[in-house]
Amino acid sequence: FEGEDTDPTLARRFAFWCEADKLKSVYRATPIADGSRKENTGEHSWHIMLYALTLADHAEAGVDIALALKMLLLHDIVEVDAGDTPIHGAVTPEALKAQEEAEIKAADRLFGLLPEDQGAMFRAIWEEFEAAETPTAVYAKSIDRTQPVLHNLSDDGGSWRTYDVKLHQLDARVGVKIARGCPKLWPYIRSQCEPWFVSRNAL
Amino acid sequence: FEGEDTDPTLARRFAFWCEADKLKSVYRATPIADGSRKENTGEHSWHIMLYALTLADHAEAGVDIALALKMLLLHDIVEVDAGDTPIHGAVTPEALKAQEEAEIKAADRLFGLLPEDQGAMFRAIWEEFEAAETPTAVYAKSIDRTQPVLHNLSDDGGSWRTYDVKLHQLDARVGVKIARGCPKLWPYIRSQCEPWFVSRNAL
Ligand SMILES: [Ca+2]
Repeated sequence: FEGEDTDPTLARRFAFWCEADKLKSVYRATPIADGSRKENTGEHSWHIMLYALTLADHAEAGVDIALALKMLLLHDIVEVDAGDTPIHGAVTPEALKAQEEAEIKAADRLFGLLPEDQGAMFRAIWEEFEAAETPTAVYAKSIDRTQPVLHNLSDDGGSWRTYDVKLHQLDARVGVKIARGCPKLWPYIRSQCEPWFVSRNAL
Repeated sequence: FEGEDTDPTLARRFAFWCEADKLKSVYRATPIADGSRKENTGEHSWHIMLYALTLADHAEAGVDIALALKMLLLHDIVEVDAGDTPIHGAVTPEALKAQEEAEIKAADRLFGLLPEDQGAMFRAIWEEFEAAETPTAVYAKSIDRTQPVLHNLSDDGGSWRTYDVKLHQLDARVGVKIARGCPKLWPYIRSQCEPWFVSRNAL
């Protein structure tokens, strides 16, 4: 009976799922599309996976869409401990370094809840995403940047209003990374954004 | 220039993503794990994908985990129009039939927003999930049933309290489907649940 019907690692996975659940209470700078409230990191992760699947034909050679989905599924779990860093917030190099260290500690703790082989596998996927070197990671990063732009657009500026963002800042902070993973996507998105920045005299 | 840099289907995809975003405002009967509020369908979809990846070693022969992730990513999008049907709510055969019809209309509208080939592909994935016949669909259905049980457990009964659920009802409504996709998972989960039902004299 024993060993056939029980799996001693299930309790560890349960602990991991419950900790990961806290992403549903981590709120981001960008709103949900109707602007009625801020978006949490759990639902954000689902939504960008939908983008990743829908934009598969924009992915460059060598991108593994199934792996990109796994990356986006796992990429923000460290925010349970380390919180979200708004991309348009004023961030000093010191703060960025502290954030990076906090995320590594968070990865140690959170992936460490899992059975060892599984924790190592998840962590490797997260590290590949963070390094942004492989085609799949570059694509996943591009997707992660795309969705907030469209939400800001549909909410009359969203976090661009909060942080008084100019178009050239959007180009530098967001556009470069979207274009790196999805070269034909950025010109379209930029053309959609430009009128809003022009109307606010915020080039 | 034209055709190189613009993609006429992007506006349709944008419309689809914005409609899908409304899942973040569809609230389910089960709470998030800390019991502080009800869970919405967007974040639920993310969370069960995490379960599906973490339980891959419990999947039976023939299950394609990448496809299971896609199923879970898309499986609840029809709720944007059709809403959520709590599994423990009193449901008549007439209401179930009406719900099914509402979901088919929702699938027509929502997947119809996408470029045709993409909409057809997404819809085929959703239909395979709904039919619950292929090993991958059976696995994905099992995962979809598993997470709410664990949230109810961690919230002193959660929606079992709301709907006055007995253990034999949990067996019939939930256990059978979990066991079908993950045979070794259900005995563990049931053993975790039993004390709560015993303590409430609700076998
Ligand atoms: Ca993030």
